[in-house]
Amino acid sequence: MKKIGILGGIGWPSTMEYYRLICEASQLYHNNKEFSGPIPMPEISIESLNMNFSVNNRGSSQPGSWYKWDSYLNAAIKRLEHSGAELIVIASVTPHGRLNEILEGINAPVVSVYESIGAHCNEKGIKNLLVFGTMPTMNSPAFICGMEEFGVKAFYPPTVELKESLLKVIERLYQGKTDGTSLAINEIARSCISSDLLDNTVICLGCTELPLAFEGFNDMPSFESSGIKYLNSTVVHALAAFKECAK
Amino acid sequence: MKKIGILGGIGWPSTMEYYRLICEASQLYHNNKEFSGPIPMPEISIESLNMNFSVNNRGSSQPGSWYKWDSYLNAAIKRLEHSGAELIVIASVTPHGRLNEILEGINAPVVSVYESIGAHCNEKGIKNLLVFGTMPTMNSPAFICGMEEFGVKAFYPPTVELKESLLKVIERLYQGKTDGTSLAINEIARSCISSDLLDNTVICLGCTELPLAFEGFNDMPSFESSGIKYLNSTVVHALAAFKECAK
Repeated sequence: MKKIGILGGIGWPSTMEYYRLICEASQLYHNNKEFSGPIPMPEISIESLNMNFSVNNRGSSQPGSWYKWDSYLNAAIKRLEHSGAELIVIASVTPHGRLNEILEGINAPVVSVYESIGAHCNEKGIKNLLVFGTMPTMNSPAFICGMEEFGVKAFYPPTVELKESLLKVIERLYQGKTDGTSLAINEIARSCISSDLLDNTVICLGCTELPLAFEGFNDMPSFESSGIKYLNSTVVHALAAFKECAK
Repeated sequence: MKKIGILGGIGWPSTMEYYRLICEASQLYHNNKEFSGPIPMPEISIESLNMNFSVNNRGSSQPGSWYKWDSYLNAAIKRLEHSGAELIVIASVTPHGRLNEILEGINAPVVSVYESIGAHCNEKGIKNLLVFGTMPTMNSPAFICGMEEFGVKAFYPPTVELKESLLKVIERLYQGKTDGTSLAINEIARSCISSDLLDNTVICLGCTELPLAFEGFNDMPSFESSGIKYLNSTVVHALAAFKECAK
């Protein structure tokens, strides 16, 4: 198995999820294999950042405004590579909007969250994806472009108000506070599109903290709650990473 | 806050616990402090090892037999230091029996599990500690010597059979399987010493996986279950690490 490097801490609860999902995937993978001693695990390096610094140094549309943020993430990924990571997983959707910048000088391949989700949609026949994410995710065309390559139509909540209600949910989840959050997400979904459209759409929990709202579904790539179909980006991404690691 | 380096993966479930406890400690620490943006977190590097390799390369009493194991852990701690870790936490009790060997060439201070537990015992007036751990822990005088410095009398289960029953419980916990494990630990405790002695003794869950058996007590440095007093080495050690980090 290849050594995995996880860029984490943005935020810490979903970093734990990636780590757990990868270790449990290794347990499952070794179920019918022969070995002596404890179940083999991939070696994993994690660089867990200070989200206070990263969020406070997010840029704007001004040129050069993302410099500090880019450098902070880039240096951490370089440390992972230096520690021997043979593939990189960024345990957060938001930074995928700036992959070119934060991967400068990195040689190890990155398991992209877009490619993991796109491949999953193709496999499951998903055509429409309403993406719930952080503000930088929902204000950038990166997710939409990433899905286009897979023939999937991605779109965001239609109003600033709906995006802001989502952010409030995400902020609670960053602190590990889950009560009431799944209900709030269900309500936002129903406010975004008509129920007719909702039937043919999957809600992509496209911020790795969002799936933590749905207890009991934390191990499933996709699931239904109150009649709404959800895609768990954390599970889809982490399992894609393990698949690469075991190749 | 200082950057923390966690040597983990031995095994992975307790590594998650250390990470969670440190992040939650940072949330608590910042409760009444002023800052803008998300709650500040210490930067954390984790090197998660393959426990199959480490356990299969444990040594014996033969000179030189621990060479591979020592080198494996030493190299990982060096990677943590190279990634900027300013203090090292080994998320497992067992390796503390060979601190001299695995810290060769390391300059960053290590938050020792013995010192963390010894200080906690002094604070709480604990005098007698029955230590439950892995076989290398229970076959080495290191824990007992570590406690002597704090005036605490530590001892292990009295028979090979009792030690082996404990190992079976630990092996289940390494895989994240918890059902029935707390009952089994309670029974082993009662088989080790008379109930008179048990009243004046605290059972030290001295393998970082053991506290996972007691759901609902995972955040407490010490707790009681079925009339038996337990010390959670994971919580005591992780909180001592955060205290050092915030100094």
